[in-house]
Amino acid sequence: MKIAVLPGDGIGPEIVAQAVRVLKALGPNFDLEEAPVGGAAYDVAGHPLPPATLELAKKADAILFGAVGDWKYDSLARELRPEQAILGLRKHLELFANFRPAICYPELTAASSLKPEIIGGLDILIVRELNGDIYFGQPRGIRTSELPLFKGAREGFDTMHYSEPEVERIGRVAFEAAQKRGKKVCSVDKANVLETSQLWREVMIRVSKDYPDVELSHMYVDNAAMQLVKAPKAFDVVVTGNLFGDILSDEAAMLTGSIGMLPSASLDKNNKGLYEPSHGSAPDIAGKGIANPLATILSAAMMLRYSLGMPAEADRIEKAVQKVLAQGLRTADIYTEGTKKVSTVEMGDAVVAAL
Amino acid sequence: MKIAVLPGDGIGPEIVAQAVRVLKALGPNFDLEEAPVGGAAYDVAGHPLPPATLELAKKADAILFGAVGDWKYDSLARELRPEQAILGLRKHLELFANFRPAICYPELTAASSLKPEIIGGLDILIVRELNGDIYFGQPRGIRTSELPLFKGAREGFDTMHYSEPEVERIGRVAFEAAQKRGKKVCSVDKANVLETSQLWREVMIRVSKDYPDVELSHMYVDNAAMQLVKAPKAFDVVVTGNLFGDILSDEAAMLTGSIGMLPSASLDKNNKGLYEPSHGSAPDIAGKGIANPLATILSAAMMLRYSLGMPAEADRIEKAVQKVLAQGLRTADIYTEGTKKVSTVEMGDAVVAAL
Ligand SMILES: CC(C)[C@H](C(=O)O)[C@@H](O)C(=O)O
Ligand SMILES: CC(C)[C@H](C(=O)O)[C@@H](O)C(=O)O
Repeated sequence: MKIAVLPGDGIGPEIVAQAVRVLKALGPNFDLEEAPVGGAAYDVAGHPLPPATLELAKKADAILFGAVGDWKYDSLARELRPEQAILGLRKHLELFANFRPAICYPELTAASSLKPEIIGGLDILIVRELNGDIYFGQPRGIRTSELPLFKGAREGFDTMHYSEPEVERIGRVAFEAAQKRGKKVCSVDKANVLETSQLWREVMIRVSKDYPDVELSHMYVDNAAMQLVKAPKAFDVVVTGNLFGDILSDEAAMLTGSIGMLPSASLDKNNKGLYEPSHGSAPDIAGKGIANPLATILSAAMMLRYSLGMPAEADRIEKAVQKVLAQGLRTADIYTEGTKKVSTVEMGDAVVAAL
Repeated sequence: MKIAVLPGDGIGPEIVAQAVRVLKALGPNFDLEEAPVGGAAYDVAGHPLPPATLELAKKADAILFGAVGDWKYDSLARELRPEQAILGLRKHLELFANFRPAICYPELTAASSLKPEIIGGLDILIVRELNGDIYFGQPRGIRTSELPLFKGAREGFDTMHYSEPEVERIGRVAFEAAQKRGKKVCSVDKANVLETSQLWREVMIRVSKDYPDVELSHMYVDNAAMQLVKAPKAFDVVVTGNLFGDILSDEAAMLTGSIGMLPSASLDKNNKGLYEPSHGSAPDIAGKGIANPLATILSAAMMLRYSLGMPAEADRIEKAVQKVLAQGLRTADIYTEGTKKVSTVEMGDAVVAAL
């Protein structure tokens, strides 16, 4: 089993190091190979996704990813900025299906800005399409306008785009996920305004016929942003496009108050995947040893389950994480009175010990 | 002073009726003229925005709008659906600047799904651009794909678009609004992915130089969706495009828990405006006499202040609303134990009495 380990920027290296320790402690002899990505790769190789890193990711069975991004790269041209690494990996490896669970752990309910009765026990899954939409649509650019009203002025433009097969394949992923959960899919679009969404909705309805045991509903994205705040537990699986998924999955993660706990998976059609925490690179706390490694450790568990066919090992990690939470250990981001504040490494120690 | 009164669908007629009573009770002899809009207009005139309604809106000094939309029009072609009325009014009248305050009234803090310490005292203003973006960008449509990967399949596409003058004018509106408030503007975009956002950000930075007393910051839309949940009170004025503004302004409104209280204004460059509640047409409770008319009544107050130059009268309405809240009167949507539940009309009565 070859695992590409791409720590990246900010807190990436610290949290990935703990996940690697946990993988090693599990027993099986994983072939772990590390490569630079993001700003760290730009620094050593002049590009956020150097050919050698991409090659490694291609030939690996799965990818464990930390995070990319740091203010110090803000002035680079966009094609050289750290974010391009993650966009490039998603596209080159055809990782089109992003699973972003938003779970509120019983021990951490108090960390949420929502009232416990609204958020306690939350367990929803956002399935975000990752290969299409306005992220990759052509044409796009900045040019001089030819529109009568703005003639001669500069204008920026991007193309939102989905084809039927793209919608169908992410739809199937969502319906299949729902079959293993609460059997409800809410498809989020903006079909009252966008043509792309009209096609999206039509295809979802057609595909849903193959999953008669799953209930399909539709919601406009503005309403979804509201309902997530008002009654998040009413959702089971949410399926949506790349752009709306970017916004809603982050909103949903933050609802739980413990985004430092949330893993994510980005899969191709053969369940090869990239696994990363839902949170970002947090350059403001990088190097301080206080970042929460649990989202990354839980991402490693997802990797074992989805890409490496090792569900028992995945369970072991998840149980170990539950145990350290029950022991009252907390990194700073999820600390509340009466619990014990620990460092990144101490949290890793505790998970390894709990395995 | 000519005011076009467009009640629309669902609860629109009920709530607008109360706002009209309040306006009449104020004293000044407003010239109020009513016309159908949305589904109601489709029913009588075959179009959601009939020429006579548009004409009235054009010649009026301000427009008091209820809400549009009802499931019974879901099967109509998009150009005939109720939503087209509001999009058409915004575009034809060049109402480019949407003011959406998100305020948490002290008496209603408990109605929020957020903890009181997070939401209590919230007072932010979202300034959303309304005339551009992917709402109106061309080309758009559904067609057969020519892309090698999807050749022959159907594809939907839309164009996100902003020109420099469009960004500049909404930017100035936001900076001027901030000068009268907390002197902070947060511009929300997705500049790490979208070219449109890159131009947006660049123009915001340039325009900000003319407002040295206002502090400009930038935030990606996914992060903004998170920060609104985590620490909404950190914002003062948020300025963003049509699509991101649609999502974030609804999210922000729902944070307060009392979206039935929140007015909005959509202004042109001469401060002529359309005023409507932030909530929708709620067809599920239409005709039951239980809808909250306060957002519409407060929209009428905004109209007096921004378009009709009558700030004293606006104050009177706002004070009257505060008074009925202090009296403990609540419609069903904001009812909590220990307060008195009243109907739409009773709430109107109370505001008129309090004037
Ligand atoms: C870094 C950025 C390009 C990326 C995205 O927008 O997809 C991030 O926000 C995410 O959600 O993984
Ligand atoms: C009805 C719809 C077209 C509209 C929009 O998307 O702008 C609504 O959601 C709003 O925010 O006023």
